[in-house]
Amino acid sequence: MGRTLAVTFEPVGRTISITPGQTFLRAAQDAGIDVMATCGGRGRCHSCRIKIVKGSVPPPTIMDTVQLGHDEVREGFRLSCQTAVSSDCAVMVMPPIAEGGHQILSCSHVFRETTSLDSGVEKRLIKAGLPTEEHHQTSDVEEILAALGNGVAGDVPLDLLRKVPALLRDDGGALTVTTFNKRIIDLESGDTTMHRYGMAFDIGTTSIVGFLLDLATGEQLAAVGSLNPQAVYGGDLMSRIAFAQFNAEALKKLQTRVLAAINGFVKEACDKAKVAPAHVYKVVIVGNTCMHHIFLGIDPTHVGLAPYAPSVRSPIVVTARELLVRVNPNAAVCFLPIVAGFVGADTMAVVLATRIYDSPHVRVAVDIGTNGEVVMGSRRKLVACSAPAGPALEGAQIRHGMRGALGAIEKVEIADDVVCGVIGGVPPIGICGSGLIDAVAKMLDAKIVGPSGLLRIEERDVLAPARGDGLVERDGERQCVLAWAAASGHGQDITISQQDIRQLQLAKGAIYSGILMLKKVMGVQDGQIKELMLAGGFGNYINIESAVRIHLLPELPVERIRYVGNAAALGAQMALLSETERNRAIALARSIEHVSLAARPDFQDIFIEAICFPGDEAADMLLSGGA
Amino acid sequence: MGRTLAVTFEPVGRTISITPGQTFLRAAQDAGIDVMATCGGRGRCHSCRIKIVKGSVPPPTIMDTVQLGHDEVREGFRLSCQTAVSSDCAVMVMPPIAEGGHQILSCSHVFRETTSLDSGVEKRLIKAGLPTEEHHQTSDVEEILAALGNGVAGDVPLDLLRKVPALLRDDGGALTVTTFNKRIIDLESGDTTMHRYGMAFDIGTTSIVGFLLDLATGEQLAAVGSLNPQAVYGGDLMSRIAFAQFNAEALKKLQTRVLAAINGFVKEACDKAKVAPAHVYKVVIVGNTCMHHIFLGIDPTHVGLAPYAPSVRSPIVVTARELLVRVNPNAAVCFLPIVAGFVGADTMAVVLATRIYDSPHVRVAVDIGTNGEVVMGSRRKLVACSAPAGPALEGAQIRHGMRGALGAIEKVEIADDVVCGVIGGVPPIGICGSGLIDAVAKMLDAKIVGPSGLLRIEERDVLAPARGDGLVERDGERQCVLAWAAASGHGQDITISQQDIRQLQLAKGAIYSGILMLKKVMGVQDGQIKELMLAGGFGNYINIESAVRIHLLPELPVERIRYVGNAAALGAQMALLSETERNRAIALARSIEHVSLAARPDFQDIFIEAICFPGDEAADMLLSGGA
Repeated sequence: MGRTLAVTFEPVGRTISITPGQTFLRAAQDAGIDVMATCGGRGRCHSCRIKIVKGSVPPPTIMDTVQLGHDEVREGFRLSCQTAVSSDCAVMVMPPIAEGGHQILSCSHVFRETTSLDSGVEKRLIKAGLPTEEHHQTSDVEEILAALGNGVAGDVPLDLLRKVPALLRDDGGALTVTTFNKRIIDLESGDTTMHRYGMAFDIGTTSIVGFLLDLATGEQLAAVGSLNPQAVYGGDLMSRIAFAQFNAEALKKLQTRVLAAINGFVKEACDKAKVAPAHVYKVVIVGNTCMHHIFLGIDPTHVGLAPYAPSVRSPIVVTARELLVRVNPNAAVCFLPIVAGFVGADTMAVVLATRIYDSPHVRVAVDIGTNGEVVMGSRRKLVACSAPAGPALEGAQIRHGMRGALGAIEKVEIADDVVCGVIGGVPPIGICGSGLIDAVAKMLDAKIVGPSGLLRIEERDVLAPARGDGLVERDGERQCVLAWAAASGHGQDITISQQDIRQLQLAKGAIYSGILMLKKVMGVQDGQIKELMLAGGFGNYINIESAVRIHLLPELPVERIRYVGNAAALGAQMALLSETERNRAIALARSIEHVSLAARPDFQDIFIEAICFPGDEAADMLLSGGA
Repeated sequence: MGRTLAVTFEPVGRTISITPGQTFLRAAQDAGIDVMATCGGRGRCHSCRIKIVKGSVPPPTIMDTVQLGHDEVREGFRLSCQTAVSSDCAVMVMPPIAEGGHQILSCSHVFRETTSLDSGVEKRLIKAGLPTEEHHQTSDVEEILAALGNGVAGDVPLDLLRKVPALLRDDGGALTVTTFNKRIIDLESGDTTMHRYGMAFDIGTTSIVGFLLDLATGEQLAAVGSLNPQAVYGGDLMSRIAFAQFNAEALKKLQTRVLAAINGFVKEACDKAKVAPAHVYKVVIVGNTCMHHIFLGIDPTHVGLAPYAPSVRSPIVVTARELLVRVNPNAAVCFLPIVAGFVGADTMAVVLATRIYDSPHVRVAVDIGTNGEVVMGSRRKLVACSAPAGPALEGAQIRHGMRGALGAIEKVEIADDVVCGVIGGVPPIGICGSGLIDAVAKMLDAKIVGPSGLLRIEERDVLAPARGDGLVERDGERQCVLAWAAASGHGQDITISQQDIRQLQLAKGAIYSGILMLKKVMGVQDGQIKELMLAGGFGNYINIESAVRIHLLPELPVERIRYVGNAAALGAQMALLSETERNRAIALARSIEHVSLAARPDFQDIFIEAICFPGDEAADMLLSGGA
């Protein structure tokens, strides 16, 4: 049967013979090796991804690029369902990206969070009369308006005007009229008053989540989400802005990708809940300023340049028809307003969800992400800033970094020895962002790392043996081994390098300096802060004590710090269910004071303070010999 | 060179040899026979039409149908530029349809007629600043709004939002902002404040006229017009409604035809005046209810059935983008409101133009057409009705009827002999609507026709010889010869038949009963009517005394009756130049009382009175011997 090739599958370590041209997925499945393939091997997801660790890496298919992004493709990741075996090699079957990567946090209590169910969308079954000889100075439209009673605006969208003559004469004139804020947006034959839905979307740089809600009951009918498919054009904001400013075509590509994703979610959610997309009458969109602009097709170039001003901040409402969103064409697609710079519509949603505007005491909401946002204040005053943390907290640009997925070190204990907690309880293959924070916090406690962030390789003999042993100099860089090759999932040491610690310092320093600056602007001390709310997917996984230990978060008693879930998504749903909430966001966006960190003369000092770790500076200096 | 065919060209009477397959136009031109071909023989106009009077009539091309309509095609008319010679024959070179057929009445004094130049369209050159570090809680859009000063709404159309970032940074931020009623509808780099245009259209059943105006000066820059290309689907309203109700596809066809015509006029007018269509920011459309509905894509079926209620009466404003009109996509396309039934947007334009609403005394405006409209009243009260006159007054469905064009009898004197005035002073080939009115008026005076409309063939010997001689019984019908074969342009007698007189009676009776009914409703006598204004293209050609004589118009002193030109087109232009005028139309449409003739129990009596001719009934009875 011709030549066969030898392929070794890690971490199970089995080598099998494969006919050239067969896909890795098919070969693995035939041999009984477990590879997850959620989409059934059609290139529609990335659950079956592998990394070619030995042998030549086959060229990527378009699906590889779409699903995995340029960075992973460059690093040798491939979709096993799309890649044919062409030479002897060894591959690592990667654990599927954990739900945490684009986790949909439960928002089933949205309704309870909103003040009222006043989505602005109303449906009424009416029985309209027909013009008669006696009552002839009228029109079909006027008969409908008369049956509706007063308060409804008389202008009817053109597509509906075209349906009026037939509708009024079908079904004996029984028709359902849908209004949004008292303007007619749909006319249907018969009684469809039971079907009144809306969708809320949080378009993040990394991921997009969406929710289908029943506007009558507030019930969440479906939740959908995925990584942001724009990622193929750049993982972070700045690289996407750089791509967008190439030319109008590039911007169009970014916009088309997010639009296609949104339309996919509409279909997916409606299919799940057995709802007609035409019965989705209101859509609320939140997202950071860049995502907001790109989805609207507005060039975000200048958002990425000082003074980082948005092109538009006001609360935009456009029809689904104009934006090509495949719900009811006259549905209102509502974007929450932007405060300034990167304090965008997503932050406004966080403000809504946390009710920070209503607090008698000072509270802080921190959304940790590639671009972090901090909002501080009370019912008297609110201030906000954005903090460009970069991707380190998500495990990116870290030597052994990975997303929070199976095999990721998420927890570290350093006693006599280093003990790692690994997601899924399997041998570790890397370290995720929350693991990095925990590891460095424990390394600070163990004095392996000093307050300046230096790995104390010189003190390895002074430290307890188990601690000192892991400190090595390798590839010209200081490193600390968390897991040795023998215990790891891929037979290599898993370390934290000096460079990794520097990346972490820059990332946590950005967030922390935002908090410090807002405290300064507000004139408050830590003691006056009644609560710190961690928002966003990432905030739910970090060890709060460790985050405080490394000064990612300020030194509040841990009971004053709590996770609040995906507050942006929750806020979007609140604005969907309630015009009161949406109007509140519009009013609040005008009153929040934006602090532009980079423009403040005192920023440098604060930033330098913020990138350091807290510690007994004198003892540290002594131990490190003054380095 | 093979066989040639003999073709005789009338009225010049030359016979020439033609190679089969050559077009009639080319052959005539080669032989030096004058045939007008305004479009250069491309089938784009109908100036070169001929009628095949002997020999077989070739099948029509699509262009024949488009340009000439089914009726003319059936009658043997063809475009000489499109029709190839295929057999020996004789053709009549037809005079081009006179301007009167779709005449563009001068409206160069529109500006003088309007109260003010307040089109609602404004252009401002501004210099917008850029957001700075110090002044960063702003956006590009807000900088533009700030430079504009207050009063301009903050919502910017999505297509313009997309242009904002680049515009603000081109040309040092100098940009021209166009607003319509204080809403931004265009943003352009640099200074384009000089270019601010609008178009007004009167979409009639028979013809469409359009005007390009400078909104800054009120100057009329171009006037365009043609027959309504929907005519291929039916010459009159009812046949077009019948076609539209076939199915949605048929309605779409009618709509597409008028849209294509309008877009053609936009291009033609803009080309003429060297104006960019993107600088046309406002369009005003008037037309009867059926044309209004069809242009908007609304099924007009029910407009054609009792109680003839429109589907919508309110003053619709849609964007050019939505209606696919190729001016500036954000331009407002404004339809004047409808009063009721066939008292449509065109009538509102007539009301505007005649200022009948402002009169201390009772005045009447009469728009004579296939569907006539009558408005009566003063500043105290206005009433209106529509009168379905049918096409007889335009010379259609009349044995020797033709449009008001070269060779048409337009004037008749009956003394010792019948003397005809012919358009162009050439031998007559038919009779046009105004000629028919004049002829019957003179026949009444000469007692050739009695008050009941009977042609008094029995009295031929009692009448003066010249009069009696023309009365003949032919083809089983009473006829009166106006021009004998020897004197006519085509060698046939030109007559008025009994049937023609009956058609005229029905047509004029419709208009006259409308006037009688409104007088009754208003409780006024002829003596109280200060002025009767004749509107519309047709009104400009009729002999007023004759129109009064046959009771098309009431018996007012002739000095109280005047032509007011194409008042509907004038009113449309007034609404274009002035929002005050447009808003006036909106307010007036609500206050005018519509009288539904057909629904009135007293209509039958009035109609029977109206179809008769005035006369000394007793003397007439005597003369006719009681028939």
